[in-house]
Amino acid sequence: MNQKRITMKEIAIEAGVAKSTVSRYFNGGYVKEETREKIRKVIEAHHYEPSAAASNLKAKETKTIGVIAPTIDSNTSSRLLTSMNAYLKEKGYTVILIDTNHDINDEIRSIQYFESLRVDGIILVATNINLIHQKLVHESQIPILIVAQHFKNGFSIIYDDYRAGYTAGEYAAKMGHENILYLGVNRVDEAVGVQRRKGVIEALEEHQVPRIHTRETDFSFSKARKVIRHYLKDHHPTMIIAATDNLALACYKEITEKGLKVPEDISLIGFGGYEVSELLTPSLCTIRFDYKLAGQMAGSTILSLIKKEPVATTQVIGFELIHGQSVKNRRKKSLSSTTS
Amino acid sequence: MNQKRITMKEIAIEAGVAKSTVSRYFNGGYVKEETREKIRKVIEAHHYEPSAAASNLKAKETKTIGVIAPTIDSNTSSRLLTSMNAYLKEKGYTVILIDTNHDINDEIRSIQYFESLRVDGIILVATNINLIHQKLVHESQIPILIVAQHFKNGFSIIYDDYRAGYTAGEYAAKMGHENILYLGVNRVDEAVGVQRRKGVIEALEEHQVPRIHTRETDFSFSKARKVIRHYLKDHHPTMIIAATDNLALACYKEITEKGLKVPEDISLIGFGGYEVSELLTPSLCTIRFDYKLAGQMAGSTILSLIKKEPVATTQVIGFELIHGQSVKNRRKKSLSSTTS
Repeated sequence: MNQKRITMKEIAIEAGVAKSTVSRYFNGGYVKEETREKIRKVIEAHHYEPSAAASNLKAKETKTIGVIAPTIDSNTSSRLLTSMNAYLKEKGYTVILIDTNHDINDEIRSIQYFESLRVDGIILVATNINLIHQKLVHESQIPILIVAQHFKNGFSIIYDDYRAGYTAGEYAAKMGHENILYLGVNRVDEAVGVQRRKGVIEALEEHQVPRIHTRETDFSFSKARKVIRHYLKDHHPTMIIAATDNLALACYKEITEKGLKVPEDISLIGFGGYEVSELLTPSLCTIRFDYKLAGQMAGSTILSLIKKEPVATTQVIGFELIHGQSVKNRRKKSLSSTTS
Repeated sequence: MNQKRITMKEIAIEAGVAKSTVSRYFNGGYVKEETREKIRKVIEAHHYEPSAAASNLKAKETKTIGVIAPTIDSNTSSRLLTSMNAYLKEKGYTVILIDTNHDINDEIRSIQYFESLRVDGIILVATNINLIHQKLVHESQIPILIVAQHFKNGFSIIYDDYRAGYTAGEYAAKMGHENILYLGVNRVDEAVGVQRRKGVIEALEEHQVPRIHTRETDFSFSKARKVIRHYLKDHHPTMIIAATDNLALACYKEITEKGLKVPEDISLIGFGGYEVSELLTPSLCTIRFDYKLAGQMAGSTILSLIKKEPVATTQVIGFELIHGQSVKNRRKKSLSSTTS
């Protein structure tokens, strides 16, 4: 026991990794399994006691979790964050939140800011994962969990956006719609902008829908109204699939103001499953993800990462199709106008 | 200029106040105008340069504002916080948010936490102001602004809840309703729970509405549905005034599921003015506060407090009554069922 203890630097040299990697290893940051194995071997060879080392190296727990989100002004985001917050609060943690307002640079700054605060863990509800994110997560001494976007080199919780999109597109095609608009959002958002869109379009193409249009907007109600108002001047789709319920509600409003009816003239599908979409007459057909579950899973996963318990690198949140009454079945020749 | 400078302690003794008060004076914390005047006189008598002193005493700016909110899972709260965040971000500040989930003890802890982080200012969207809040704000070295609740001994931005409630109650009475339920929320929330309720009930009483009932619930959709389902078993109101749009939407759902119609059987009034309430058929009659403006005002006010610019102790946010189509005019004998 009195033999000279190996230092972190020596472990790093012997394992052939950077000193910062060894530091991350002890502090619960992300280290590739392969690298982790190398460090473990050196430690074992020297009878190094990682628990003692960890308690020396590890900064005192602050019992705070930093959460970074692109918006709080959406029902899905609010629901996710509220559930995450309730879970972590119950476990004795303080959750501090930064709302980046869809600004990716702000996400980067927020990660750095939370590191300077020495939070115990960071949850990033991401719009997009770029190289800077990857570098930051890789170098971070603090466990980081990504929610809503797939992250190859770390831990993430994702919604099954591609399959959800495919399900919506397939349903539209099977209901006999042949002239369909997909109202999507900016493709900077990888999950909603790219994957969801891809699922919808591929389903429509595979089911040989003859006329498929797409338009792009942002997440705001007012911008969507403008885009759809303009589109409806020259086009007569029988179906609009909108990337979020909020956008679908904007379509709803424009269709109604034009004196047209949902679903008789134009059918509608959204993504979200907000309580209010049920209140509309007719109620909105939508894809519902379990945001409450996603929030709880994010909370329990970051705690597992902090405690260095085993965690799956990717966890996928499922969805269900809520039929509602906003889709007309065009296969039935004017017998009944809606499906249940 | 080379005369011996007076110390903070000496200023305190000469002004007859605590040293911590002098410290607050320089750091932009709350100091009563009367006390402020005493300190100012001592400083002037000694040709003390407050700017130099301030730069010595004042902790380095962190360019962060701590925001404490009871929930982010409500449209009004999300809108307020998003607007506040956008304003402060534009001004170069990072906003960090703690969601207390309506837990007052958590508000107290969060104020202390933000002080330990040395944020430049704190905005508390409050549920209730108790003695501990008062003490914390009084002792704080950091400017604190209260939003949504009136605060006697400091700075606050409030919604005009009493008058908004009165306006809703008066409108209900003038439309000829004689059997009215007010669905309120827990009275721990001073603004919504007490003031809004008081406004409604006093208007109904002054207009001699013969049957006035009240029921209490929390802010959740599901709990409100349960309360109203139970109430409608034995009661036949012609009008329900609900403390929030969310609660009104819950009533809407229950009324519809009972096979009754809005407004023919039961009229509805809410508070909020969410975009979706317009989408309902019939659209909801509601009281709309300008939450976006409130957020901007909160942002600009906390910056004024930080910069020690003059600020009104209480700023009041106005409202408007959106008539919608959910109120039946019972004075017109079955001519037309709605008002515009």
